[in-house]
Amino acid sequence: MAFSERVSRLKSSLIREILAAAQRPEVMSFAGGLPAESMLPAMDWSALPASIGQYGMSEGEPALREAIAAEARALGVPCEASQVLIVSGSQQTLDLAAKLFIDPGTEVLLEAPTYLAALQAFQLFGADCIGVPQEADGPELGALREALETRKPAFAYLIPTFQNPSAVRYSEAKRDAVAALLDEFQVTLIEDEPYRELTFDGGSATPIVTRLKKTSWIYTGTVSKTLLPGLRVGFLIATPDLYPHLLRLKQSADLHTNRIGQWQALQWLGSEQYRAHLVELRSFYRTRRDAMQAALEEHFGDLASWEVPQGGLFYWLKLHRPLDTRTLLNPALAQNVAFMPGEPFFIDPEANPGYLRLNFSHVAPERLSEGLRRLAGVIREAQAAEAA
Amino acid sequence: MAFSERVSRLKSSLIREILAAAQRPEVMSFAGGLPAESMLPAMDWSALPASIGQYGMSEGEPALREAIAAEARALGVPCEASQVLIVSGSQQTLDLAAKLFIDPGTEVLLEAPTYLAALQAFQLFGADCIGVPQEADGPELGALREALETRKPAFAYLIPTFQNPSAVRYSEAKRDAVAALLDEFQVTLIEDEPYRELTFDGGSATPIVTRLKKTSWIYTGTVSKTLLPGLRVGFLIATPDLYPHLLRLKQSADLHTNRIGQWQALQWLGSEQYRAHLVELRSFYRTRRDAMQAALEEHFGDLASWEVPQGGLFYWLKLHRPLDTRTLLNPALAQNVAFMPGEPFFIDPEANPGYLRLNFSHVAPERLSEGLRRLAGVIREAQAAEAA
Repeated sequence: MAFSERVSRLKSSLIREILAAAQRPEVMSFAGGLPAESMLPAMDWSALPASIGQYGMSEGEPALREAIAAEARALGVPCEASQVLIVSGSQQTLDLAAKLFIDPGTEVLLEAPTYLAALQAFQLFGADCIGVPQEADGPELGALREALETRKPAFAYLIPTFQNPSAVRYSEAKRDAVAALLDEFQVTLIEDEPYRELTFDGGSATPIVTRLKKTSWIYTGTVSKTLLPGLRVGFLIATPDLYPHLLRLKQSADLHTNRIGQWQALQWLGSEQYRAHLVELRSFYRTRRDAMQAALEEHFGDLASWEVPQGGLFYWLKLHRPLDTRTLLNPALAQNVAFMPGEPFFIDPEANPGYLRLNFSHVAPERLSEGLRRLAGVIREAQAAEAA
Repeated sequence: MAFSERVSRLKSSLIREILAAAQRPEVMSFAGGLPAESMLPAMDWSALPASIGQYGMSEGEPALREAIAAEARALGVPCEASQVLIVSGSQQTLDLAAKLFIDPGTEVLLEAPTYLAALQAFQLFGADCIGVPQEADGPELGALREALETRKPAFAYLIPTFQNPSAVRYSEAKRDAVAALLDEFQVTLIEDEPYRELTFDGGSATPIVTRLKKTSWIYTGTVSKTLLPGLRVGFLIATPDLYPHLLRLKQSADLHTNRIGQWQALQWLGSEQYRAHLVELRSFYRTRRDAMQAALEEHFGDLASWEVPQGGLFYWLKLHRPLDTRTLLNPALAQNVAFMPGEPFFIDPEANPGYLRLNFSHVAPERLSEGLRRLAGVIREAQAAEAA
């Protein structure tokens, strides 16, 4: 069987395997990024028009595109509905962007760490990935400038608001600095914001694309983290030089995004009901974040350091005594605990041992402390074995 | 802006432009492949479980995969549910197959003519497409053998049952012969069957994949032509050597297919209600096919030749005096008539002038004759101008 060269770069997905293992009901899973089941809003389908069953436009439903453009403009993103492309979850934006920009050997710039599935999507198409170290308030600017001066990335892929996995929210100053650098070197920005609405301290900062003056950009979001991931409805907004190509790539990928989910998303976006749901959601996740913080202090105080996330769905722990956290997976699963090792979030996993990503939205509070106690025990045992 | 090499192969989609023009209500459109609005079945959502809003599995919903495997086995396709991958419309199968097999220069084998969007999807990834002439009962076997002997296609993409655009249904003999040849040369078969259920004479022939003994295959279908295209739910069934790669490519493309549409499709597949709907649908389209035949005899009898389609959604006309039918588009649209020129369905459009694809499912019967009268007039005028 002669497969494409691409397939040799198709990695076995650690996430898939962990999530599959975590399906067992007895498993306490800190692994995924799933919304809490109890916070999935009830769907009302009674007004769904029969005509929505017909083929639709590759761009997406006109009314939904208008609603998304209006929300984006309220954030300061300069755009019209004609720049909005509805996608089948924001994962599809990564696929379309990879197709648009990446040949084997094309350089792309990413945060280190970055979103695992983005790294995989870009590497699948043969990207040569350049990492810029992430600090508590955003990327290390010296390293960013150096990368832009010495390399020729086709785009920078950034998650400036409650990044997955690091939970970092860029400061205002870093947002301005990053925008100025990308403008200076004319590098396209892909800004991924699935977690923007999941803020716990009320703080907000406008997207980096609102601060760009010259360079091209794609801004992407989704209803998966705030509404219903099962709808598979996301969006991208792109500058007019990129949009027509992305549209044709979308058409070739799946003709158009399912219209049933688009219709449901439109019932929520911009509505009073949605605003109320978001208030409730933030409060619910803030409580879970706080419970996780208390349990972490109890069980991980001497093992790791971390920042308290001000939004999103994850804690990002750095072990005081680094080890390859992938080796902890099987012992943890044997104790019915699942988590995400940190290594796969880096371009060079071997050079970055000792991080763990822990989700706090999904595990029920009454099992939280027990789960973290077991995980801490697994780590202590591994460290003891290594020292012996 | 540095795009990928791929983007230089991204053609402006004639179909997109024609369909956009055909949106105007005054246009009589023979262009698309849209189901008749009146035949879209009513959807009942009352039993939709709330949990379906959560993330799902990349493979698709287990119950739907079981139902599809059962239907396929009833057709003679040897498969288990574990070989079924739910896709976001069968267009996505083309994208996944292109990613799995095609590097720039990879040879692939297609019918001539073939489905335009498949040709575009494969060419986007850089395929070197080899065409085998289509006859009334399937591919020309001598040409097929010669192509297999002299070239090294990564796969053969075939639409053996009511092909788009030619409406050809392979005979039993050709199905056997094609299967034997693909086995002999160990070439993977991608068999695309969106139209299988839309049969007007009750005739059926088992898929070619049921006749293969050795080589790998992907069998793909959809609910778009029989149920609701707006759901964007299709499927592929693949041999176990291909499946794991396709699954990972699916995950990288959009994580999973929307679960709302999968749930709705499951309510229908295998049900008595679905069987009754299919009976009604066949009868409805048979009537439209017959009305089209009468109108074609009236207006095109001296202009073109064609076979009466025994299924599917299209007539495929061959003009007695060939001309580039793309030049007819604007004059036809000026008279509020849309159709699909035949040239883009061929690997070498310039070498294949004089075909038209006419859809018979979508235009209301009372406008049919008038639409064809105008289209025939446009052709006569163009031929007269050419002769002058």
